[in-house]
Amino acid sequence: MITVYGSSVSGNCWKVAQILRLTGRACRWVEVDSNKGETRTAEFLAINPVGKIPAARLDDGSVLIESDAMLAHFAEGTRWLPPPGLPRTRVFEWLFFEQYSHEPSIAVARNIISHLRTADQHRERLEQCRVGGERALGVMEQRLAKHDFLTDAGPTIADLALFAYTHVADEGGFDLARWPGVSAWLRRVADIPGIVKLPLQHEEAPA
Amino acid sequence: MITVYGSSVSGNCWKVAQILRLTGRACRWVEVDSNKGETRTAEFLAINPVGKIPAARLDDGSVLIESDAMLAHFAEGTRWLPPPGLPRTRVFEWLFFEQYSHEPSIAVARNIISHLRTADQHRERLEQCRVGGERALGVMEQRLAKHDFLTDAGPTIADLALFAYTHVADEGGFDLARWPGVSAWLRRVADIPGIVKLPLQHEEAPA
Repeated sequence: MITVYGSSVSGNCWKVAQILRLTGRACRWVEVDSNKGETRTAEFLAINPVGKIPAARLDDGSVLIESDAMLAHFAEGTRWLPPPGLPRTRVFEWLFFEQYSHEPSIAVARNIISHLRTADQHRERLEQCRVGGERALGVMEQRLAKHDFLTDAGPTIADLALFAYTHVADEGGFDLARWPGVSAWLRRVADIPGIVKLPLQHEEAPA
Repeated sequence: MITVYGSSVSGNCWKVAQILRLTGRACRWVEVDSNKGETRTAEFLAINPVGKIPAARLDDGSVLIESDAMLAHFAEGTRWLPPPGLPRTRVFEWLFFEQYSHEPSIAVARNIISHLRTADQHRERLEQCRVGGERALGVMEQRLAKHDFLTDAGPTIADLALFAYTHVADEGGFDLARWPGVSAWLRRVADIPGIVKLPLQHEEAPA
């Protein structure tokens, strides 16, 4: 059985739990809290030298890292990832957008405000997150004001990758009512059978 | 012919020029300087709503964005990108590492120091870049101290993506002599026939 090392409140970790669930794979979940330094221990760095969650250990002992690479790995051959060519490239454009232009603002603001609860000490950082996050939501709105999903291939891992932190963006101080196309898309994705929301609930007992 | 919008000193843009060259495709190059605000004009935002270079217009009018998605697109079916499965996932792990954990430190430091020339105004930001960049180079060193390339599939777009800013990391204040495995890998990649270095030289006249 696949072992996933992750945090049940992390959008990046949600991606892995979600694609495993959608593709019918069970997993064993090991809770790891990066806010408590648990991703920087020697034990965890032996699992993932980059010192980040999520990480997943496969049955053959291989360890996968990087949440969006894991999404693509587990989605290969399913309807969640189109075959190679322009439709697949469109998915990867959104995956890289998510990691570079969305997550560093929207996930970081949420972590500061709702998990670390240190907003008072990070006013300047939060302002940078606000500017970057609003720009990212604006890019999504441009697409989603006129389309049901992020790419023309129907729901894909691009939608999962962006749903991860967008559906909890309010916890980072973003008022999603300002982006009606994004809000409608969030409801559309949430209605897909099998989609769950944060925080993750695990059927298996945590290790 | 493919039209690439990019900056000849940008590592992200280098990736696109490099994979097109390695896979035998000619391109028309349109120079765009983000430091002069040229990626935030209405004209450029109509090409790429995210407001970033590189972007590439294909013969059918489609526009590709996100440098690492473009690397994968143009490498599909070539020896630079393994077929789907674990070998391909290993490549994507490095691509996402590059965009999340490497570029935001190493490319940003280089831009502040060597292009904007505003190091005096950005001491705190540069210190963050130093810490993040050294951590990223350390992760690469762990792999490259014992292996010729970033994945077991031989030279791939993972090596191109990381070569992009690592081979000019000294321009961001990083002393690569501290990472001998990385330094040896840089020489190994540079020796591959067809590999060029920054700044890009274009055979076609700029538009």
